[in-house]
Amino acid sequence: MARGQGPATQAERTSTVADTRFFTRQGPFSGEQMAKEAGGEFIPARDGHADGRTYVGIGPLQSAGVAEVSFLDNRRYASLLDGTKAGLVILAPAFAKQVPAGCAAIVSSTPYLAWSRVARMFHPARNSRPGIHAMAIVGASSMVDPSCEVGPFAVIGDGVEIGAGTIIGSHVVIGDGVCIGEDCRIGAHAVISHATLGDRVTLFPGAKIGQDGFGFAVGPAGFETVPQLGRVVLEHDVEIGANSTIDRGSVQDTVIGAGSRLDNLVQIGHNTRLGKCCIVVSQAGISGSTELGDYVTVAAQAGLIGHIKIGSKARIGAQCGVMSDVEAGADVIGSPAMPFREFFRNVATLRRLSKKPESGGTRAGHAGAEEN
Amino acid sequence: MARGQGPATQAERTSTVADTRFFTRQGPFSGEQMAKEAGGEFIPARDGHADGRTYVGIGPLQSAGVAEVSFLDNRRYASLLDGTKAGLVILAPAFAKQVPAGCAAIVSSTPYLAWSRVARMFHPARNSRPGIHAMAIVGASSMVDPSCEVGPFAVIGDGVEIGAGTIIGSHVVIGDGVCIGEDCRIGAHAVISHATLGDRVTLFPGAKIGQDGFGFAVGPAGFETVPQLGRVVLEHDVEIGANSTIDRGSVQDTVIGAGSRLDNLVQIGHNTRLGKCCIVVSQAGISGSTELGDYVTVAAQAGLIGHIKIGSKARIGAQCGVMSDVEAGADVIGSPAMPFREFFRNVATLRRLSKKPESGGTRAGHAGAEEN
Amino acid sequence: MARGQGPATQAERTSTVADTRFFTRQGPFSGEQMAKEAGGEFIPARDGHADGRTYVGIGPLQSAGVAEVSFLDNRRYASLLDGTKAGLVILAPAFAKQVPAGCAAIVSSTPYLAWSRVARMFHPARNSRPGIHAMAIVGASSMVDPSCEVGPFAVIGDGVEIGAGTIIGSHVVIGDGVCIGEDCRIGAHAVISHATLGDRVTLFPGAKIGQDGFGFAVGPAGFETVPQLGRVVLEHDVEIGANSTIDRGSVQDTVIGAGSRLDNLVQIGHNTRLGKCCIVVSQAGISGSTELGDYVTVAAQAGLIGHIKIGSKARIGAQCGVMSDVEAGADVIGSPAMPFREFFRNVATLRRLSKKPESGGTRAGHAGAEEN
Repeated sequence: MARGQGPATQAERTSTVADTRFFTRQGPFSGEQMAKEAGGEFIPARDGHADGRTYVGIGPLQSAGVAEVSFLDNRRYASLLDGTKAGLVILAPAFAKQVPAGCAAIVSSTPYLAWSRVARMFHPARNSRPGIHAMAIVGASSMVDPSCEVGPFAVIGDGVEIGAGTIIGSHVVIGDGVCIGEDCRIGAHAVISHATLGDRVTLFPGAKIGQDGFGFAVGPAGFETVPQLGRVVLEHDVEIGANSTIDRGSVQDTVIGAGSRLDNLVQIGHNTRLGKCCIVVSQAGISGSTELGDYVTVAAQAGLIGHIKIGSKARIGAQCGVMSDVEAGADVIGSPAMPFREFFRNVATLRRLSKKPESGGTRAGHAGAEEN
Repeated sequence: MARGQGPATQAERTSTVADTRFFTRQGPFSGEQMAKEAGGEFIPARDGHADGRTYVGIGPLQSAGVAEVSFLDNRRYASLLDGTKAGLVILAPAFAKQVPAGCAAIVSSTPYLAWSRVARMFHPARNSRPGIHAMAIVGASSMVDPSCEVGPFAVIGDGVEIGAGTIIGSHVVIGDGVCIGEDCRIGAHAVISHATLGDRVTLFPGAKIGQDGFGFAVGPAGFETVPQLGRVVLEHDVEIGANSTIDRGSVQDTVIGAGSRLDNLVQIGHNTRLGKCCIVVSQAGISGSTELGDYVTVAAQAGLIGHIKIGSKARIGAQCGVMSDVEAGADVIGSPAMPFREFFRNVATLRRLSKKPESGGTRAGHAGAEEN
Repeated sequence: MARGQGPATQAERTSTVADTRFFTRQGPFSGEQMAKEAGGEFIPARDGHADGRTYVGIGPLQSAGVAEVSFLDNRRYASLLDGTKAGLVILAPAFAKQVPAGCAAIVSSTPYLAWSRVARMFHPARNSRPGIHAMAIVGASSMVDPSCEVGPFAVIGDGVEIGAGTIIGSHVVIGDGVCIGEDCRIGAHAVISHATLGDRVTLFPGAKIGQDGFGFAVGPAGFETVPQLGRVVLEHDVEIGANSTIDRGSVQDTVIGAGSRLDNLVQIGHNTRLGKCCIVVSQAGISGSTELGDYVTVAAQAGLIGHIKIGSKARIGAQCGVMSDVEAGADVIGSPAMPFREFFRNVATLRRLSKKPESGGTRAGHAGAEEN
């Protein structure tokens, strides 16, 4: 297709994985090589056609060819397995029997993880290209490791430290005194101030880290800004999505625990603390001074008020409105938040009570008639 | 008013349409010229005073003067028609009789469209001012049409193609290999990677297109990033609002169909596909791999989970939480989503059941007493 | 701790207020000095140990030392008072008796305001460092007061006016004709067009002000953009959070009244008007042409449809979905919005009606059994 983009045909839409304009590719790899990397079991094609074959890339079940690897990790797409032309499929043991005769397999009890590692073999993350762009500005007293890449129009203040292998994207702004660890990926247009970042931290484009929390007092002539004197601490392996915002603390730090991943357009208020490996999905918001344990999941568009505690491994459903503490391991949803079972029981109850309001008799008195 | 901005008086607030500091103006135009462009019927003022008059600009009913054009497209503002000083009003046939005697009219069955076209006559969109700013950076192998305008501090990577008449705003970042069509408007601070854009695509400031989807697998030592190997495809005439985020696909493309319009702060997950002429209002979010048909409307702050299908012309209400497929043409609202009628019936039922809990007798057993 | 940031110990997390890498400090100050500034009453330590003592900084109750000032403004943290090592605590009269014997106090009926002012004594906001960075671009016809600070890679258009003492951050884009008052703080990566800003306006990083509203008409070949010909007016002392978006009006102005504060990721539609001293918390959205009175509070993730009126001092709860006018002083929550009391009564009613569905008899007929 020439420049410009009209409505894509279905074929165009599904044949463009790992477009070479955007992605570099390694390989080829044999099934055994991939199985080893993936931690799965290699199963040759039943008809022997795939013996000794190597694979050059990856693709979805619908469009992958015989020299490509595909995967199945979601039961709802299992029907695509029959018609796939992929040369090898990564999947769970339960689907192994459904693999077409000419197709090899890698069987794994964690097929998505196995897939992830195989895809990474073909398309490894790019490394830093050491050097500070001539159009970047770096404060004289800052220490930027020589192995770092700093893009054009980046502005790095004074007293900044940046560890080995880190990539600073174009137009990134890093305030005075900020400390960034090794092998971080700071996306274009991120702004960071009053913060320390561990190693392997990823910020996606437009993330805003360390600005003032939303703090003010009511004074005689209007609101008065309360100084926000804490920091933001992003521990190792944290990931923050595009255009998300994390305010610095007021009198303590805002902390995102090691390995936690935040999606796009997420808001984290001042003094909030997330434990390790928490997940916060897009457009969710966590208000000030709330504390999450480890492995907490906050689904999309959920909102947590301030000054509450969420126990480890709790799961907060999409659009949930959490107004009080949540116990470790609990599953809650609804606004206000309640256990999943209670929420869906409420939904069913209300549906039942609302039916046939025009019919005679008492609405709620005849349970049998309402069971529908 | 001099520099600085105290509380505006009501007069100042309503007299500032098309402030000449910000907008250029064409004209004057006669009523007949405008009616032709608008596809409406010109009706001279009943008292003849407006015969031969031309108009120099546009304004709201409350403040437009005799040489200005105004419009009425919302019944709730019909009372303003009586007192208007506008010289010509664009409106639907139903209101034609209410036009003041000295005021001409353009009557149209689509008055908002007619208004839009007339306003565009006075204030046409500005064209590209060809040239690449001296402070922009363009990769050597990129092909930027000579008619394009590229603003200061823009960064355009390698292998990029940009079609005729496109305007690239200041600080825009365009990654390697990105393809942009003709007559696009890329707002300041937009970031685009792994994407192809059709013709007449508009990105508002701060939109982030093509970053990694939110994909990770649970590994033995924490989350492991799943390579995101798809693209973003924005078809012709797509519009993306300020600070919205569109993730690229994982193994297929994220596609926004031709003519679709997304408002500010919208999130689109990886592999999501919108058909043509969909509308997604501000702060709504659509999770990964969900598919929308054509002419779907998603109202503000609605959320759709992943892997579902929304039929064409469905309408998703504000703050709706959609957890399963929605049929073509359906109107849903609530969380979880349900038909509009059911939602409001539920609201009424619950209100009724909650009333007077302190009263004697069984609450739900006496339907008559509850009808209130 | 060296560069990089592993999981912080609890001690590290709480001992880092006003990290000298990020904050400058004034002082020391005596208790009497602070009490005067704070408008509170100084109460010496009961054991006399603090007589004549001065204080060098501030800290939270858990970690502040004897030369530091702390505060208590939230009942839920009152238990921390016993163990505090702080030399002086700012608090409300109700807690004055609980202050440890060796600790001085400032007692105030507005302790948070008092705290704010004391913290500001130690950490005053920094002033403008006059000068236009060599890498900033300023239109020839613009008038930037010599006392302004303009950061690197800022782009200021033609006909712009900027008042004394204002700081323009790096990468800020200011469109032609924009007028900005005195002592404003425009954060990095803000984009402003078609707007006038009063004095002491603060924009946090990434705020987008003045782009087109979401306006289009349905034409025969798809949507047609409706020219957006109004402005954005930010009155004195307005504050806009990180990555928030405020669209300019279509035929009148979008107005944010004096002293109003908007948090991060807030969306304001075209023609919307906020009165003075409104509060809009993160991720809330206000649709087009809606009008708020003065002192209205809109909590996090609330959404207001267009063309409605919210009376002064109304409070809109978190995640509230407001579909119709709200009276002055009303407290509403829920989606659709309803009075707080009604909302929580509904929640209780539904919980009661949903209980024990497996038990015999009619569910709603035996109220006594349901009272739980």
